[in-house]
Amino acid sequence: MIQLTRRYQFSASHRLHSVDLSEAENERIFGKCNNPYGHGHNYEVEVTVKGEIDQATGCVVNLSDLDTLVVEQVVAPFDHRNLNEEIVEFRRLVPTTENLGVVIDRRLREAWPRVFPGAAPKLERVRILETPRNIFEI
Amino acid sequence: MIQLTRRYQFSASHRLHSVDLSEAENERIFGKCNNPYGHGHNYEVEVTVKGEIDQATGCVVNLSDLDTLVVEQVVAPFDHRNLNEEIVEFRRLVPTTENLGVVIDRRLREAWPRVFPGAAPKLERVRILETPRNIFEI
Amino acid sequence: MIQLTRRYQFSASHRLHSVDLSEAENERIFGKCNNPYGHGHNYEVEVTVKGEIDQATGCVVNLSDLDTLVVEQVVAPFDHRNLNEEIVEFRRLVPTTENLGVVIDRRLREAWPRVFPGAAPKLERVRILETPRNIFEI
Amino acid sequence: MIQLTRRYQFSASHRLHSVDLSEAENERIFGKCNNPYGHGHNYEVEVTVKGEIDQATGCVVNLSDLDTLVVEQVVAPFDHRNLNEEIVEFRRLVPTTENLGVVIDRRLREAWPRVFPGAAPKLERVRILETPRNIFEI
Amino acid sequence: MIQLTRRYQFSASHRLHSVDLSEAENERIFGKCNNPYGHGHNYEVEVTVKGEIDQATGCVVNLSDLDTLVVEQVVAPFDHRNLNEEIVEFRRLVPTTENLGVVIDRRLREAWPRVFPGAAPKLERVRILETPRNIFEI
Amino acid sequence: MIQLTRRYQFSASHRLHSVDLSEAENERIFGKCNNPYGHGHNYEVEVTVKGEIDQATGCVVNLSDLDTLVVEQVVAPFDHRNLNEEIVEFRRLVPTTENLGVVIDRRLREAWPRVFPGAAPKLERVRILETPRNIFEI
Repeated sequence: MIQLTRRYQFSASHRLHSVDLSEAENERIFGKCNNPYGHGHNYEVEVTVKGEIDQATGCVVNLSDLDTLVVEQVVAPFDHRNLNEEIVEFRRLVPTTENLGVVIDRRLREAWPRVFPGAAPKLERVRILETPRNIFEI
Repeated sequence: MIQLTRRYQFSASHRLHSVDLSEAENERIFGKCNNPYGHGHNYEVEVTVKGEIDQATGCVVNLSDLDTLVVEQVVAPFDHRNLNEEIVEFRRLVPTTENLGVVIDRRLREAWPRVFPGAAPKLERVRILETPRNIFEI
Repeated sequence: MIQLTRRYQFSASHRLHSVDLSEAENERIFGKCNNPYGHGHNYEVEVTVKGEIDQATGCVVNLSDLDTLVVEQVVAPFDHRNLNEEIVEFRRLVPTTENLGVVIDRRLREAWPRVFPGAAPKLERVRILETPRNIFEI
Repeated sequence: MIQLTRRYQFSASHRLHSVDLSEAENERIFGKCNNPYGHGHNYEVEVTVKGEIDQATGCVVNLSDLDTLVVEQVVAPFDHRNLNEEIVEFRRLVPTTENLGVVIDRRLREAWPRVFPGAAPKLERVRILETPRNIFEI
Repeated sequence: MIQLTRRYQFSASHRLHSVDLSEAENERIFGKCNNPYGHGHNYEVEVTVKGEIDQATGCVVNLSDLDTLVVEQVVAPFDHRNLNEEIVEFRRLVPTTENLGVVIDRRLREAWPRVFPGAAPKLERVRILETPRNIFEI
Repeated sequence: MIQLTRRYQFSASHRLHSVDLSEAENERIFGKCNNPYGHGHNYEVEVTVKGEIDQATGCVVNLSDLDTLVVEQVVAPFDHRNLNEEIVEFRRLVPTTENLGVVIDRRLREAWPRVFPGAAPKLERVRILETPRNIFEI
């Protein structure tokens, strides 16, 4: 068994604001991240695949298939977008990078079997960097 | 003469849209950057100072003074902000990273003599990274 | 469950020298690191927190609380210090980066319950980089 | 128990081509990596060692011994080499980075007991980066 | 006037060998880089453009045009290639990274006026990294 | 004409303290850097060489000669040393990174003609990084 981690990037904006909290609580908890006009990041996503090395090809996964899946499910819909306004999962959910990681993980897991059915490589782990200092692992 | 380059960071959102262009032209020129809901980046600013080494201290500039100036003029007002909506210079000016660099350069040059008067070190150059792939130098 | 890893930095000096070894053994084992005048590094510390995402805030941990804890226990006491001379744990213990990691891990674990009591996020792991080539994980 | 990860680098060339596949299949699966003239990479290898901290030295492993082993088994034989033509393991095996990682892992595990016998630190994990975007873990 | 530097990457193999030198001289001068089977690198190319900011768009250059030009002239023909065998300029010229930089610079300068005619932004500088330690500037 | 920049690293400790200043002034100007026990850094030195490409070899400089010179003059004497106590130039001179850069530049320029006489490549520039945020150019 071997693991491959491949890195992807997208740029997006967001505002941390919870509809379940008062204005004062939002302000206290999220501070400058609660700014109503939003702010943004260059996000980096690391997708880790685990599987056996195919004897004939020497590969753990077809990289072209993996790229198609991740671009389709994550990079294309999220890049140059406002997470609060344009991503359906964040209509009520606060788009913290924790929740963003969970959403990306769920999107990849749901689409995975269509692209990698049966004994194919598994999605082992999703990691997301908000900045080089803050790394989240689902 | 010696140069010191010091790096600062902030995260902000923006939308590339020119009031001097039609909707179709904005769409054609800026593509996904024209998305009305905006997107964002982790910007990195490099401020280069040039001067002589002070004989007594062995320093080209007082780093604490430099930090105070750059935080006051750039990091504090821009971090976690929407450039289009919250920065006065971008009321009409398109907040491309080119223009953002020019605005940062101008803000630092205007405030410079108050902090570093007379024969003090000069502001040599401002550089700004939008992403690790795109670097602008004013 | 989700993990957040956050990076911190400090600069310090140290000398690798064991009071339990002879001069010749110290010289043989530690080589140039045994230099009596010491040397130093820019250390990078990665603190990994594990917990559930809070439903209301979408966060795994209050970053401000985490920063206060790590700065108080690690960054403030170690930054711009000589580990051998100024850190109580290294009065007899050799300040290798292995032992430095253990000391940082212990300091954080002892202070953790005061800041994060009860069902709060756990301290999952401490990593420390001595140089970009040498990474220690406790 | 503590882990040390140490990074090594080498540059090599390779061609992805399987003797078990037809020309058309090789072309379809490996694409531009199947180019008969080959291409190359700056590979980065991360060797992770796990063990207890020696009470007298404060170290988990003698770095000089570890370097000698990794240079002898990996860096010296692979650096500035063509993997297909000059590395015995790749006479039939396709030199994908997956297989390269397995070969490096096997070489290190076989030589390990000679350098680190008995209760010495264990080889915990080998990771190899083909490019900064593609990371393999054995 | 403003400068934009944009980074591109490709992976290629080469052998340092001069037809104007004897075998012994080639061996003495190029050492392990003279290995007849070749070796390879992940090259990074930095293209710096200089010009005025367009008043309407706020941009110094159309990034899409720049990418098309650099991909067409450099990334597509060089990526996953053997420089000695597949790049016409290196039939006799030794493919050191110095010469590779000159070839890339020349290709970009020759194609430039077709894509950026008249008062358009100028090609200011080409830089190429062979490894993170070795950077060449034309 | 072409430029090559090559990176070197060393780790050292220092204390910022001027014999020309009072204790109070030293404390006020250097703050925590004035700590009598010192602190340290992983320094990174970038040496830039400028010259013509040799027609026969395709190289701007013999890398092996350059390495020998820089290791002899800088890396070997400074690595794992205390700058204040062990480097002759800092007996009275404050070992700020500004002054360290000047000392390195002077050492390289003095030794240069012995290794690279006549029409050989010139030493164009020395840069030194104290931390990834603070870069000095002589």
